[in-house]
Amino acid sequence: MPDTTTLTGVPFDRKPFTSLLKRRFFFTEAFEIYREGTNIKKGSKGLYDYGPPGCALQANIVEAWREHFVLEEDMLELDCTMLTPEEVFKTSGHVEKFADWMCKDTVNGDLLRADHLVESVLEARLEGDKRAREAREVEATRLDDSTKQEYDEILAKIDNYDGPELGELINRFDIRNLNGNNPVHPPIPFNLMFKTSTGPDAAVPAYLRPETAQGQFVNFRKLLEYNENQMPFASASIGKAFRNEIAPRSGLLRVREFLLAEIEHFVDPDGGKKHKRFEEVRDVELRLLDRDTQLAGKKDLRSMTIGEAVEQCIVDNETLGYFLARVKLFLQKLGIRLEKLRFRQHLANEMAHYATDCWDAELLTSYGWIECVGCADRSAYDLTVHAKRTGVPLVVCEPRTEPLRVEEWQTMLDKGKLEPLLREDTEAVEEVVAALSQIALEPAATTLAEEGEITLHLSASIPDITLGSELITISNVTRVEHIREYTPNVIEPSFGIGRILYSLLEHVYWHREGDVAREVLSLPPSIAPTKVLLVPLSAQPAFRPILHTLSRKLRALGISNRIDDSSATLGKRYARNDELGTPFGVTVDFESVRDGSVTLRERDSTRQVRASQEEIVDAIVRMVTGTEVWEEVEGRLPAFGVA
Amino acid sequence: MPDTTTLTGVPFDRKPFTSLLKRRFFFTEAFEIYREGTNIKKGSKGLYDYGPPGCALQANIVEAWREHFVLEEDMLELDCTMLTPEEVFKTSGHVEKFADWMCKDTVNGDLLRADHLVESVLEARLEGDKRAREAREVEATRLDDSTKQEYDEILAKIDNYDGPELGELINRFDIRNLNGNNPVHPPIPFNLMFKTSTGPDAAVPAYLRPETAQGQFVNFRKLLEYNENQMPFASASIGKAFRNEIAPRSGLLRVREFLLAEIEHFVDPDGGKKHKRFEEVRDVELRLLDRDTQLAGKKDLRSMTIGEAVEQCIVDNETLGYFLARVKLFLQKLGIRLEKLRFRQHLANEMAHYATDCWDAELLTSYGWIECVGCADRSAYDLTVHAKRTGVPLVVCEPRTEPLRVEEWQTMLDKGKLEPLLREDTEAVEEVVAALSQIALEPAATTLAEEGEITLHLSASIPDITLGSELITISNVTRVEHIREYTPNVIEPSFGIGRILYSLLEHVYWHREGDVAREVLSLPPSIAPTKVLLVPLSAQPAFRPILHTLSRKLRALGISNRIDDSSATLGKRYARNDELGTPFGVTVDFESVRDGSVTLRERDSTRQVRASQEEIVDAIVRMVTGTEVWEEVEGRLPAFGVA
Repeated sequence: MPDTTTLTGVPFDRKPFTSLLKRRFFFTEAFEIYREGTNIKKGSKGLYDYGPPGCALQANIVEAWREHFVLEEDMLELDCTMLTPEEVFKTSGHVEKFADWMCKDTVNGDLLRADHLVESVLEARLEGDKRAREAREVEATRLDDSTKQEYDEILAKIDNYDGPELGELINRFDIRNLNGNNPVHPPIPFNLMFKTSTGPDAAVPAYLRPETAQGQFVNFRKLLEYNENQMPFASASIGKAFRNEIAPRSGLLRVREFLLAEIEHFVDPDGGKKHKRFEEVRDVELRLLDRDTQLAGKKDLRSMTIGEAVEQCIVDNETLGYFLARVKLFLQKLGIRLEKLRFRQHLANEMAHYATDCWDAELLTSYGWIECVGCADRSAYDLTVHAKRTGVPLVVCEPRTEPLRVEEWQTMLDKGKLEPLLREDTEAVEEVVAALSQIALEPAATTLAEEGEITLHLSASIPDITLGSELITISNVTRVEHIREYTPNVIEPSFGIGRILYSLLEHVYWHREGDVAREVLSLPPSIAPTKVLLVPLSAQPAFRPILHTLSRKLRALGISNRIDDSSATLGKRYARNDELGTPFGVTVDFESVRDGSVTLRERDSTRQVRASQEEIVDAIVRMVTGTEVWEEVEGRLPAFGVA
Repeated sequence: MPDTTTLTGVPFDRKPFTSLLKRRFFFTEAFEIYREGTNIKKGSKGLYDYGPPGCALQANIVEAWREHFVLEEDMLELDCTMLTPEEVFKTSGHVEKFADWMCKDTVNGDLLRADHLVESVLEARLEGDKRAREAREVEATRLDDSTKQEYDEILAKIDNYDGPELGELINRFDIRNLNGNNPVHPPIPFNLMFKTSTGPDAAVPAYLRPETAQGQFVNFRKLLEYNENQMPFASASIGKAFRNEIAPRSGLLRVREFLLAEIEHFVDPDGGKKHKRFEEVRDVELRLLDRDTQLAGKKDLRSMTIGEAVEQCIVDNETLGYFLARVKLFLQKLGIRLEKLRFRQHLANEMAHYATDCWDAELLTSYGWIECVGCADRSAYDLTVHAKRTGVPLVVCEPRTEPLRVEEWQTMLDKGKLEPLLREDTEAVEEVVAALSQIALEPAATTLAEEGEITLHLSASIPDITLGSELITISNVTRVEHIREYTPNVIEPSFGIGRILYSLLEHVYWHREGDVAREVLSLPPSIAPTKVLLVPLSAQPAFRPILHTLSRKLRALGISNRIDDSSATLGKRYARNDELGTPFGVTVDFESVRDGSVTLRERDSTRQVRASQEEIVDAIVRMVTGTEVWEEVEGRLPAFGVA
C-alpha cells in the first residue's frame, strides 16, 4: 500500500475508512445477502450499489460536472442506449481489439490478468528484497542490484507491454500464480465487452457499451445539424458503461458497471487545434508525467503552466491543453487534494486502439495512482470508420471565405465517335480514363500534344488501344471550390465518476486529533450529500415547530437537510453526521423558543456561531453556493460557547 | 388511431408531430446511420437516443420526480447495478415467469406477440365492419351483432388472457398473421430478460434487470439500519431497465431499454396499511376504471375522490390510495392534460407474478390509453423469497408497547436419564419431540398425565419408543414476547419516464390557428428544456454585451437559456423555439441600448411586455419556479406592441 496521509498528516488507514463507508451505507457490494447466503460469489464481483449518501454524493458530482462543462460551454447533451448492435462495435474496432491479456493457471485453472500478474509478482519480490535487506539477511535471499533495477524499470512501464511481451517477461522471470505457485499458460486476449442478443430469435448479437462515445459519434450528423452547422462544438453524455473485468479488485476502482461522463469535442484538424478560450486557462499549473520520462524508467513530475506545456509541445495542442486545465479546476472544486493529482501521458502501446495521444488525470489513493479522467485525442478515427461502413458522410461542409482554386488535368472523350469504333470496349476505356491519376495525366497530356495519340492499357484480356486527339482531349483547367469538406477530429475527456468519488472520499477522510474513532469526511458544502443537520437540544415539544419550519425553508432553497430528533446525545448525533460529511449543524434550544436565535456548527472546526434563523439560513445558502466561506461567517456573526 | 384532440380542439395528427420531434432532435432511432447504410435493422428496433432537448426534458422530469417524491418524503435513494446474477432473478420468479406469449407464423417464421396478434386482428375486423356499414355494403361483408359484441368484450379484457387462452381464441376465431395471412403455431412463453454472463469463464449467467426493484429489496436490511430501524419508510431508484420486447412498436412507448423511477414503500401489513399523510390527499379527484367494470366488458370511468375510493374499498388501502393521488398531482405538475388521464385496475391474470393488486395511471395518446405509472401492492412477496433463499432474515423487529403473552405447550427431556437408555436413538427422539406441534402436544400432555407415558413414532426403521413421565414432561407455560417481528409489505409506484415524456409531448402539442406549420409545444416553464431564448433584433454589435450579461445572470440563477444571433428573421427564430417548447423570449433592441429595457415574449399567447432587465429577469425566475404566472406578469408590466 503506498504511503498516503490524511489532511492532518497522519498515515491513511484503509481499514477504518472502508468500515465507515460501509457502516454509513455510502456503498455496499451488490447482492450482499446472496454472497452471505448462497454460492453466487463467483462472477458477481466488481458490482457495487450506492446507498443514500453515496447516491447523493454521486448526484452532486454529476451536477457539478454538468455545470462546469456542459452548461459552461453549451455542450449538446445526449442520452444514448447502452445496448449496441454488434455491427457498430465491429466498425469501431472494439470487437477485435477491446481486450485485456489473460493467463490461465496450468494447474488450478485460475484466470489472471497478465499485466497484473507480472506486476504483483515483481512487486512481491521487491518487497521481499526490501525486508531481507532491512533484516540484514544473507545475500542469497536478496535480489542483485541489476535485477532490482530491471524490475523497477519494467514496473514503471508495465502498461506498455502487449500480450507476447508479457509472455516473454513471464518466461524470463519465471512468473507464477501467487495463489499456489503454479506456472501459467501464455497470455491470450480476452474481450471485455458483455455480450447479449436482442429480439426473439437470439441470432442478433449485441453488446453493452464499454464507453458512451460511440452513441455520440453515430449521432454526429444530427448533432451538427442541431448546432446549425457551427464548428467547433462538443457533445456530452452521462451514463453507465460496462466492462467485463477479468479479475475485479480494489473496491470501487475496478468494477464491471460504472458511471461515465464523457465529452466529445469536435474540432477542425486544420490550424493546430486552437481553442478560443485557451487564454482563460493558460496560467493554470499542472504536474505532468510525460511519455519520455516514463520510458526512461522514471516517475519524476514536472510542474508547469499549461501554456508552457503546449508551447514546449509536451502537450500536443491547445484544445487538449484547455481540457487538461479545465479537468484540474473541476477536480479542485470537488475537494480533490491537489498534491494527490498528476497528469500522466499514455505510452504508445498503452493507448486504446482509437487514440493518437492520451493524458490521464491520476489521483493518489491507498491503491496507488489511479486513472480517473482520460483525455484522449481520437483524431478522425471514429467518424471515418463509421462513415466508411455505413456510406453516410460524417463530415463538415463549410463555405470557404476565399474560394479555393484547384489546378488540375481533365479528360474528355468524344463518345459519339468512340462508340461506333470501340463497341463493347467503350465502357472499359471510359473506366480506365476516369481512373487516371493527376500524376499520370500530366505526361499523357504531353504525349498527346507531341505525338497526337496515346496508348491505353485496358486489361490482360483486351489488346491495348490507341486513341488519337480527335477522340480524347486532356486539358489543364482551374476548378474553383467554394465548399470545404472535412472530417472533424475529436478530443475526448472521459470521467470515471465512481473512481473520482472513491478517491475524493479517501482525500477528505481524517480523524480528530488523538481520537481515531472521531472520523470526519471534509467534503465541500456544495458536494456533501446532506448540507445541514437539524437537531433539537432535547425532546422538548416546543422545539419541533422551529425545526420543521427551518427544514421547509432550507428545502425550498434547494438545501438538503435532515432532522435528527433521536434520543442520542448531541455529541453522538454530530459525530454521526461528521462521518456522513454533513458540513453544517443547526441546534434548536430554549433560547430559540424565547428569541428565535439558533446556533450554527461547522463540521471541520466544530466551532459555532449564534444568530437569528434568517441570518443562519442566509449564511448556509452563501456557503453552499460558494459566495462565502466559514471563516467569513465566523468573522461577522457572534461566536457561541464550545461544542 | 383513437381520436384525440390538441389543446385547441383540433384532431391530433401524429405525422407532423413525429416529424417535429425528429427535426428538433428530441429523439432519434438509435444507430440511425446504420439503419440507412447496413442491414442491422433486425434486432436493433426499440432503441432510441435522446438529443439535446429530449435529454434536457428527461432530466427536468426526473428532477421534478425527485422533488415531488424523494425529497418531499425523505425517501432513501439508491443506485443499484443493472447486471444481476441469475440466482437473484430465479428467486424473484423472473427467470420462470417474466415472459410474454409468442406465436410463430407457420410459413414465413414471423415471431409475434400473441395478445397483440389477437388484438390487431379483431380490431381490423371491427374496423372493416364499421366501414362496410358506413358504405351500406351487403350483409355478407359485415359481422353479425353477437360476434361484434363478443369481439368488444374480448378486447376490453385482452390483458387478462394467459397463453393457452390466447391459443383458444386464435383457434376459435381463425386468427392469422396480418402479414401474409398464414396460420400461426400455438403461443409459447418468451422470457423478456436480456441474458449475458459475467467474468472470464462464461459459465456465470447474469441478466440485465427488467425493473430496479430487486436491487432495493436485496438491500432492505441495510436500508432499515440506515433508517435507524424506523418504519414505515420508502426507498427509491432512478435508472435504466431492459426488456427484450418480442416486437417493439409505438415509438418511444414500447422500447427495449428505458428509464424507470421506482419507489418501494415498506409498510407494516397490520393495521390496514394506513398512511399518516392520507388526509392531505383525501379530496383529490381521480377517474377510475376498476376491475369489475372491465370484466363486464365495459370502459366507463368513475370519478370520485381518493377518500371515497378507499372507503368504498375500490382502492384497497390508504397507502396505495395516497400514492395514486400523489401520482396524479405529479403528472398534473408536468403538464399532463387531466382529461387524458385515468387510473385502471389490473385484471387478475394481467398482474405481474409478484403483485396482489395493481392500478395503472394511463395516459391517452394517439396509440390509445398507455400505462405510464404502475402502482402495485407486492405484499411481502419479494422480501420473503429472498430471505428464504439466502437465509438472511429480512424482517423488522420492533419492541412491543404491550408485551405479548403467548400460552403454549413446552416439552422437556431428561437427557441424563435418556442417553444411557436410548444410546444412538437419543438424537432421533429429541428431533421428533422438538418437531411436535402445539396441536399434537395438547393431547400428548393429557395422555402423559393420565397414563404416565406416551409412545413416539420415530421412523419406519426404528421401533416405536415409549417414554415415561420420569423422562419427559409436557407443561403449559406462558411466554412473554417483548419484540414483534414481521416482514413488511411493499407498495410500489413505478414510473416509465420515457412513456410519460412521450405522452406529455403529445398532450402539449398544437399549432396556431389556421397555420399547421406554426407548431408549438406548450411545456410548463419548470419542465421545458430551455427556459429563455435571447435574441438581438439585428446583427448590431451594441446588442451583444447586453445579451451576454443577461445570459450569465440567468445561468447563475439556474435558468437555462440560449442566445440565437443567427441571421434568420425574428419570427423564424421564435418559431423554432416554439417548436422546442421554450416558454420565454427576450428581445434586445435599440431601445435596450438606450435605456436598458428589454421585451419579454410568452410562447403560448405570443404577447409581450417591456421592462428593465432586472424586472424581466425577476419575472422569468418567478414564472419558472412557479411563484407567478404569465397573466400576473402581464397584469403588472407594460404591454409591448404585437410580436
